[in-house]
Amino acid sequence: MEEQMKALVCHQNGSISLEDRPVPILLEETDAVVKVTLSTICMSDLHIMRGAVPRAVPETVLGHEFVGEVVSVGEQVRTLRPGDRVAANCITFCGECYFCKKGFINNCQNGGWELGCRIDGCQAEYVRVPFAEQGLTKIPDQVTDENALFVGDILSSGYFGAELCDITPGDTIAVIGAGPVGLCGMLCARLFGAAKIIAMDIDPYRLSFAKEQGLADVTISPTEADWEKTIAQETHGWGADGVIEAAGGKDTFDIAWKIARPNSVVALIAMYEENQTFPLPSMYGKNLIFKTGGVDAVHCERLMELIAAGKINTDFLITHKAPLNDILKGYEVFGERKDHCYKWAVTPYEERA
Amino acid sequence: MEEQMKALVCHQNGSISLEDRPVPILLEETDAVVKVTLSTICMSDLHIMRGAVPRAVPETVLGHEFVGEVVSVGEQVRTLRPGDRVAANCITFCGECYFCKKGFINNCQNGGWELGCRIDGCQAEYVRVPFAEQGLTKIPDQVTDENALFVGDILSSGYFGAELCDITPGDTIAVIGAGPVGLCGMLCARLFGAAKIIAMDIDPYRLSFAKEQGLADVTISPTEADWEKTIAQETHGWGADGVIEAAGGKDTFDIAWKIARPNSVVALIAMYEENQTFPLPSMYGKNLIFKTGGVDAVHCERLMELIAAGKINTDFLITHKAPLNDILKGYEVFGERKDHCYKWAVTPYEERA
Amino acid sequence: MEEQMKALVCHQNGSISLEDRPVPILLEETDAVVKVTLSTICMSDLHIMRGAVPRAVPETVLGHEFVGEVVSVGEQVRTLRPGDRVAANCITFCGECYFCKKGFINNCQNGGWELGCRIDGCQAEYVRVPFAEQGLTKIPDQVTDENALFVGDILSSGYFGAELCDITPGDTIAVIGAGPVGLCGMLCARLFGAAKIIAMDIDPYRLSFAKEQGLADVTISPTEADWEKTIAQETHGWGADGVIEAAGGKDTFDIAWKIARPNSVVALIAMYEENQTFPLPSMYGKNLIFKTGGVDAVHCERLMELIAAGKINTDFLITHKAPLNDILKGYEVFGERKDHCYKWAVTPYEERA
Amino acid sequence: MEEQMKALVCHQNGSISLEDRPVPILLEETDAVVKVTLSTICMSDLHIMRGAVPRAVPETVLGHEFVGEVVSVGEQVRTLRPGDRVAANCITFCGECYFCKKGFINNCQNGGWELGCRIDGCQAEYVRVPFAEQGLTKIPDQVTDENALFVGDILSSGYFGAELCDITPGDTIAVIGAGPVGLCGMLCARLFGAAKIIAMDIDPYRLSFAKEQGLADVTISPTEADWEKTIAQETHGWGADGVIEAAGGKDTFDIAWKIARPNSVVALIAMYEENQTFPLPSMYGKNLIFKTGGVDAVHCERLMELIAAGKINTDFLITHKAPLNDILKGYEVFGERKDHCYKWAVTPYEERA
Repeated sequence: MEEQMKALVCHQNGSISLEDRPVPILLEETDAVVKVTLSTICMSDLHIMRGAVPRAVPETVLGHEFVGEVVSVGEQVRTLRPGDRVAANCITFCGECYFCKKGFINNCQNGGWELGCRIDGCQAEYVRVPFAEQGLTKIPDQVTDENALFVGDILSSGYFGAELCDITPGDTIAVIGAGPVGLCGMLCARLFGAAKIIAMDIDPYRLSFAKEQGLADVTISPTEADWEKTIAQETHGWGADGVIEAAGGKDTFDIAWKIARPNSVVALIAMYEENQTFPLPSMYGKNLIFKTGGVDAVHCERLMELIAAGKINTDFLITHKAPLNDILKGYEVFGERKDHCYKWAVTPYEERA
Repeated sequence: MEEQMKALVCHQNGSISLEDRPVPILLEETDAVVKVTLSTICMSDLHIMRGAVPRAVPETVLGHEFVGEVVSVGEQVRTLRPGDRVAANCITFCGECYFCKKGFINNCQNGGWELGCRIDGCQAEYVRVPFAEQGLTKIPDQVTDENALFVGDILSSGYFGAELCDITPGDTIAVIGAGPVGLCGMLCARLFGAAKIIAMDIDPYRLSFAKEQGLADVTISPTEADWEKTIAQETHGWGADGVIEAAGGKDTFDIAWKIARPNSVVALIAMYEENQTFPLPSMYGKNLIFKTGGVDAVHCERLMELIAAGKINTDFLITHKAPLNDILKGYEVFGERKDHCYKWAVTPYEERA
Repeated sequence: MEEQMKALVCHQNGSISLEDRPVPILLEETDAVVKVTLSTICMSDLHIMRGAVPRAVPETVLGHEFVGEVVSVGEQVRTLRPGDRVAANCITFCGECYFCKKGFINNCQNGGWELGCRIDGCQAEYVRVPFAEQGLTKIPDQVTDENALFVGDILSSGYFGAELCDITPGDTIAVIGAGPVGLCGMLCARLFGAAKIIAMDIDPYRLSFAKEQGLADVTISPTEADWEKTIAQETHGWGADGVIEAAGGKDTFDIAWKIARPNSVVALIAMYEENQTFPLPSMYGKNLIFKTGGVDAVHCERLMELIAAGKINTDFLITHKAPLNDILKGYEVFGERKDHCYKWAVTPYEERA
Repeated sequence: MEEQMKALVCHQNGSISLEDRPVPILLEETDAVVKVTLSTICMSDLHIMRGAVPRAVPETVLGHEFVGEVVSVGEQVRTLRPGDRVAANCITFCGECYFCKKGFINNCQNGGWELGCRIDGCQAEYVRVPFAEQGLTKIPDQVTDENALFVGDILSSGYFGAELCDITPGDTIAVIGAGPVGLCGMLCARLFGAAKIIAMDIDPYRLSFAKEQGLADVTISPTEADWEKTIAQETHGWGADGVIEAAGGKDTFDIAWKIARPNSVVALIAMYEENQTFPLPSMYGKNLIFKTGGVDAVHCERLMELIAAGKINTDFLITHKAPLNDILKGYEVFGERKDHCYKWAVTPYEERA
């Protein structure tokens, strides 16, 4: 008889429930099966529940952001062994196709966003990871599960946004959205040498948190009367040297291109739910560069080295932690931003009396 | 009494007329006065007539694309002497401000599009050129006026578009719009090593001209039933490695992003008259880069070297040539694309019996 | 009984002979066996004979530059089929290690220069190719064997040299050595938009050949009295915008850094047999960049596209062609540059009466 | 009668003395005269004394690293006013020539190392600064003289070295020489996101200082038996991802290329007094890039922003401070590295009873 485990399943109608599912086994020679030691809930999980992700397959176990321990590996997996502690990449990619070879793994011809979307994900006790050599990064001893939890998704996204901005040390970078991805963007913009980081959000709590954490130097709410003037004052009157748009709200694209210095990059890494207006006549001559898209999470090893060296620490994002048993509560708290929740971490299922 | 000359003036109501105007004199120490030996009409001149250029000043002499002979120079002009043959840059720029130092001359804090827009331009016998050391490029002996005519405007624009595309030798580049700027874009894409150039236009004459000139390898009209299929066939099914959008039409932005390969650059160098729809949700994951804007014509010396070396020749664009006397006819023929006119060149005014 | 074939073997003492050897078979699941339809002799083959390649293994079949037809493929080879026409890469590389993923295939941790050096090469009727998916490039129908012959070695080397120079259209590039690799360097420098190419060699025949082929605009022999003055005249007095050193002679490094413009790249792609003097005090302030090393032949597909599109043609290098039967004669003619030989092409063995 | 001041003069025979000299006045319209409020002694001053700088002119006032207050400006100086606090660039450059426009100010055709070398420098009460708009950077109020002292020379050099290395966040960078320039190199390598910095020096004090300051993560003396093994252990066995050679010693070039990872950059920013051996055959295939040269100190404004934002602080280098009266003592202490001196700062001359 198949071994059973607990897993959070998303149904056709968008409801979720914690159910018994068979423990996954190896299907391909490039697979690994991983025991999940810590996972978390992502905004994209909520997108799936709301039916906003066309590629999502119903009755799939949710979750794509996690760390764990390798349990078994396929025959072609040479660099991983049972017992290895690993962090997962949110993107499944083959590493061999035209796009993978160029580093555009988000466009992998044999993958894409699979885990917790089209195949069973990590909000469970075990998970099968395809192309395991590509998608799993070993965690060094001195790095805890908490330290490594965000490597393959939101930290990669923040790094992606900062990298897209072509930052030169001394630059002023504006980040729209001070949620988990935005904060990772600030942290990574700093890593590239940004001298001044301007955080924008409508939530005053999130703005002050960004400042307290030392991630933002200046915070601005677009609800303030004088916010455009403040931007000008903070940027020699020219606008920011780079903009990371991590909010995807109704007006945030419009804010993004307006606060950008002529000839700068606007990194649009948010997931928009609606078409935007592209006012090319009004922005003519500003010579802006818009970089659009989903994270190419190709820098997991690099990020792990930075974490191991103590140059990156994202533990502050874990505001809540509870076992898999309580994950429905987690969706509620995280999804509705109750109790100033940034990230809800999920520890393994506990047998309770 | 002031010396007089003939000049084409654009009036408040958009009408134009050939009038007597005083020959310009030096106003600043960085000025030069140039005798115009060959000039031409540009689409932007027609934009001004139509009232579509807010920065334009009424009663100004039109024209910003020309070559000529230096007549006099201000005290601070050291590298130019009377008698020097020169090609003009369409942008007036100081070379010293923050943006100029970065090569973003289109955003010069002391200039911009001045000639034939805010100050008297070149569709006249003489023209005053501010920041003459920046804005004039010497023409070597072996280069004719015809050879050099487009250096500072449409050839620079084509080069700008091609450069924005980050072309690697072997790439397939699509160019939307096979008019003068589009053809220059093709020519420059070739210069960067493009292996295959796909020209798109609705005008079959322009498409076959592009092919005859050896500029396009493949030509496609978006009115053909199967045009999307053809693009796919010509690009391994992925789309073009770079797109130069030089048309600015109703649907051309939409075509541009659709025919682009994931993770490629779309250079939007056309002047749009209307806002576009930016369908970020539909293009999510394609990770496109959009580079917008007006030409930074900083490579005039480089282009002149390439012309002198015989690696660039744009003479084929001069389909019509007549003296300044006939310039009103020129506006009609060029503006309405009569007689397959690409560019109408203007030679000096001739006294007629 | 094993099937036999003819093969050129290099013995311990440096002598070579055409011998009977078993036709190779698949050893690894990533192998292919290829029937050689056209191959050629390379300077590195002569280096091996002279004992100048420490990694070379005695009694190996020589040769690493060839095209052929796939005969059989291992189980993990998915993109190649028997009957496919292919061009070979001179470097054997896994495509998966740290260096391969960065494009530094010359430093592949599981490969390097193997064919005709450490394992049997292509100067035979058949050859086994490891990591066949990485090392073989399909030849399109419209490309002949002759067209494709140099893709994986000397054409890649020339491309490598030109690419290292960070050429901008309009640049003046000096190439030292007008032999096969130098000529490929010129051809590729042109591809990147070089406006002027200066060829240097001590052989007047090779200089005039470079000019006749349209590859060099200016030719200079360092034996001329005024050669340094000529360089200055041709380069605004500054030196070349990039230098490809493809000769590796006694004085050629010294020439290379002297003719380079301050702040330019000197690509040292020659194989030196002796240490050079690095006169850092004399060159202080010139801020030169030296890029050293062996070819990273990662652009074979790109080069094939350029050949198919008619943008690259290296047929002019094949000055001699004869069947495998006559390869000893080929070594003599090519090795001693008799009869103005650039490249000696080897067609299949012919049974003779 | 001319006003007099105290100034340190270097004589033909290499001796130095504190003398009375006329206070400098404006000579060109682009000059400024600056009252020196803090200056320092540089290794290059000692090079001049030793006769190792051919371009140096005898009887010149030494010194090129300083901050001060503008006293008067020439007619063409628009961005500076008397009373402005400024930091000086060690390089005098016009900002307009071919090389300046490319950012290669070290090769300025109208400048170079002038101050304290060919024209009177800053180890005096006042100094005349040519091309003052280019060579002086305004100091914001919140930045002290001490904070800004090294902006235009050794901090720029460290930044230059780090920038040359093309650092990607997460890289391991080795810095040879833990003196003032080397320490600035470490600080700037960190700024570009280096995860691990390896400092090499033969002086154990300097190594532990580098570690205490948080600049180095690992320290190695090349006198240790196992130093090569340590490098290997710290770098996955591959070598450092970039090397900054700031020592210029007898064996340091040899160490530099050996500890570099294949395909990495070795930045040779030290001033060598002897030719080196360039063992191209031994390093063949390692595909190293050597960037040579003197600092292009073009990033002074950027560095000032980073200082103002608290992201860079070099105060720890000022181990000694005394008025101009005691500068001879300063040369002795700094020159002979007495008392663990890193930098000797010079405050204004004091009238003593």
